[in-house]
Amino acid sequence: MAKNITSQEKDYSQWYLDVVREAKLAEHSPVRGSMVIRPNGMALWENMKGALDQMFKDTGHENAYFPLFIPKSFLSKEAQHVEGFAKECAVVTHSRLKSVDGGVEVDPESKLEEELIVRPTSETIIWDTYRSWIQSYRDLPILVNQWANVVRWEMRTRLFLRTMEFLWQEGHTAHATKEEAVEETRQMLDVYATFAEEFMAMPVLKGVKTESERFAGAVETYCIEALMQDGKALQAGTSHFLGQNFAKAFDVKFQDKDGEHKLVWATSWGVSTRLIGGLIMTHSDDQGLVLPPKLAPTQVVIVPIYRSDEQREAVLEYADGIYEELTELGVRIKVDDRDNQNPGYKFAEHEAAGIPLRIAVGPRDLENNNVELARRDILEKNIESREGLGERVHKLLDDIQNELFEKAKKRREEMTSEVDSYDEFKEVIEDKGGFVWAHWDGTAETEEKIKEETKATIRLIPLEDGEEGECMVTRKPSKQKVLFARSY
Amino acid sequence: MAKNITSQEKDYSQWYLDVVREAKLAEHSPVRGSMVIRPNGMALWENMKGALDQMFKDTGHENAYFPLFIPKSFLSKEAQHVEGFAKECAVVTHSRLKSVDGGVEVDPESKLEEELIVRPTSETIIWDTYRSWIQSYRDLPILVNQWANVVRWEMRTRLFLRTMEFLWQEGHTAHATKEEAVEETRQMLDVYATFAEEFMAMPVLKGVKTESERFAGAVETYCIEALMQDGKALQAGTSHFLGQNFAKAFDVKFQDKDGEHKLVWATSWGVSTRLIGGLIMTHSDDQGLVLPPKLAPTQVVIVPIYRSDEQREAVLEYADGIYEELTELGVRIKVDDRDNQNPGYKFAEHEAAGIPLRIAVGPRDLENNNVELARRDILEKNIESREGLGERVHKLLDDIQNELFEKAKKRREEMTSEVDSYDEFKEVIEDKGGFVWAHWDGTAETEEKIKEETKATIRLIPLEDGEEGECMVTRKPSKQKVLFARSY
Ligand SMILES: [Zn+2]
Ligand SMILES: [Zn+2]
Repeated sequence: MAKNITSQEKDYSQWYLDVVREAKLAEHSPVRGSMVIRPNGMALWENMKGALDQMFKDTGHENAYFPLFIPKSFLSKEAQHVEGFAKECAVVTHSRLKSVDGGVEVDPESKLEEELIVRPTSETIIWDTYRSWIQSYRDLPILVNQWANVVRWEMRTRLFLRTMEFLWQEGHTAHATKEEAVEETRQMLDVYATFAEEFMAMPVLKGVKTESERFAGAVETYCIEALMQDGKALQAGTSHFLGQNFAKAFDVKFQDKDGEHKLVWATSWGVSTRLIGGLIMTHSDDQGLVLPPKLAPTQVVIVPIYRSDEQREAVLEYADGIYEELTELGVRIKVDDRDNQNPGYKFAEHEAAGIPLRIAVGPRDLENNNVELARRDILEKNIESREGLGERVHKLLDDIQNELFEKAKKRREEMTSEVDSYDEFKEVIEDKGGFVWAHWDGTAETEEKIKEETKATIRLIPLEDGEEGECMVTRKPSKQKVLFARSY
Repeated sequence: MAKNITSQEKDYSQWYLDVVREAKLAEHSPVRGSMVIRPNGMALWENMKGALDQMFKDTGHENAYFPLFIPKSFLSKEAQHVEGFAKECAVVTHSRLKSVDGGVEVDPESKLEEELIVRPTSETIIWDTYRSWIQSYRDLPILVNQWANVVRWEMRTRLFLRTMEFLWQEGHTAHATKEEAVEETRQMLDVYATFAEEFMAMPVLKGVKTESERFAGAVETYCIEALMQDGKALQAGTSHFLGQNFAKAFDVKFQDKDGEHKLVWATSWGVSTRLIGGLIMTHSDDQGLVLPPKLAPTQVVIVPIYRSDEQREAVLEYADGIYEELTELGVRIKVDDRDNQNPGYKFAEHEAAGIPLRIAVGPRDLENNNVELARRDILEKNIESREGLGERVHKLLDDIQNELFEKAKKRREEMTSEVDSYDEFKEVIEDKGGFVWAHWDGTAETEEKIKEETKATIRLIPLEDGEEGECMVTRKPSKQKVLFARSY
């Protein structure tokens, strides 16, 4: 166990915070609920962003940017939307400070006529804009995405998982038909699932939310759900079919091919820096962060080991040769040639930061034409020949990526139960945790009762029909089993 | 002249707004002073960002992200800084709305204990954070950049050039010595100048600002200045040497090699979406936007021309061949195969959007193994052989990039004057405009007098010493001529 990291077994919550700190991903800021994303965290987010952005562009989307501030009156235009967000809004009321005895105070004369809300999400300002972009069916579809910061006033925050301000992307699309909008919603859910599994190596289940867990203003909310190491679920991404709700609220109509004026159909979909929390809780261990190679800002680090200046020169030259061979193969690699830190310190630092592979080279490796190659994920190290090292490392990175996914998938399977009675449900949720499939009668009352009594919520209703049965609580008819878990 | 664009000669300001609109770069939003950056504008900004980000990384910088909100008390810690920004601050005072008769109102019970400022720039929150990052000389330098949105409450706004919210990057570095910090400030000025000239094809002059034009809290502000087509100057980027001002204000000290505790030296530097305004006013014409190929999201567009379905198939196949050849050469190319718009409409749209090259292909081109190749910058079109087209286009893009720069540089030279007397100065500023070199006595009084009487400001003091002389206004001694202009 790394010296500054509490073990998972002892205190999983503290372990999480320790890993975030030791990997230098983020820290709390003096503004309650806000965080500073440190360079290691930002480099990781940039890689995630880059991969997602390419997937959005490959599916025909373009990026745009809409204002940070939303007039207060916009929020009230969609009834459910305002209800969902009114309680957590940062409100701008003034536009000026004035000096008072060496300090500053808000200038009361600068009070705004209409208050501005710092966007918690951008449906309202975007649909207000779309009204002028859309006249005819020729203007549809609009396939736009935005990378932005948003603010939701949260009382209980946790780095990455729940913060007042967070970074995210929000896609907002407009369509001529319901079918096309539903198809878009499902397509983006698939994009998210592919990203989670192929890049983050984090297995996810796809489904729809119950009415009570739906996005404020949506007709249907699709989601991907992942299972963390401690048996709690994490909602990792959502894709909303918004029907014509926002088109109605903002009067957005188009003239169709048949000459009729019709309301536009909408979707929105988003993932955020919360994914970083999911990544940490899927792969990391008591030594710190474990990163899947596809997203690791640095995939391989070379640590040169030497005592004399003469050794230093020879070892660094050897290291540079490896650096060049691997760079040419497209591997993201760094030589850690800092003189003011010893190898032991460097090893611990790179382990905590989750760099997938470490290559150590010393004078003896030069003599024997070897290197020491250490895998972060399974903490195993071997002496390897310098010959063909590039190809071997390249293949190993692919292997690690796959093995991390398989391992996470196996853990999820082991932590997934299926129950028939409510007693059994309570026992499993309390003792084992994890995902639990059970029958439910489809009512909000039963959902609420289960939540109150067990702290477990319905994570999703599967997209495909399942076997019918009886609700574990009320014994009323159930169309299919749904997925329960306690969650982040 | 394009039909929806006012000519430059008739009304340059209106021309600018027309170009922004017709190129679909941006538009005003319902929140006064905020803008919506449309997909064409965002793709351009993403290319600019990509090139700059690579240059920052090549000079050793990493990205991080700091909170949007700054506690009001932080601003007051650096006296000049607060004076500079207090008058244009968006202030968050409440955290909740409540429903009142179908609308929403700010919930008075959610009033914050300390108001939060939406960042106008991030020196204060960053230096507060650096205090915990810096203990020893080993922790220095810190070379961090942030891509972010910032808000400065502006009364008179203009798309891209001056908006309440804008996108930018702000570099914030910390150093052990003054020399190193000054070197960093100068290095980033050079990075900006290189970016402006090599990517934007916009010639710039480098210099330092006078005391009255300095960044609030800086010891010295370095800048690059460009000359727009209408003879007005645009400050295109600034790099500030902040001395120890922020280290003092936030108590940031390090233990040096000699064991002494010393204040840290600081720099900050930024460019913003304002650069897009500069790009427009450097190259564009009465047909719309002209983009330098290195930054153009689409460098070449192919417009297929056909009447029958049979022609369509053959022409599209021909177009696809060209598309593939050019894509392989790394050219960003699109085939505009929209069926619901005619070629004339497409030509006008691509011209307004500034796509550097257009290739039109019709049935006759197929027969003769030709294409029609049109240059956006000089509005010239030629029949070219299909053989070797890829290489020719690739070279032509390089030529256009260079010619745009040379043309802008020549115009700047023609619009640069050197004067000895104040009468001559007033005449040149009023009749010819442009850059004017003149002697100045170095006092804020004279600078202010000139500004009041002529609306011209000192854009920069050159970095190299020039010939001494006498101030054109007061006849007092002057160390060197400085650069005047009216400006945006
Ligand atoms: Zn591979
Ligand atoms: Zn070239």
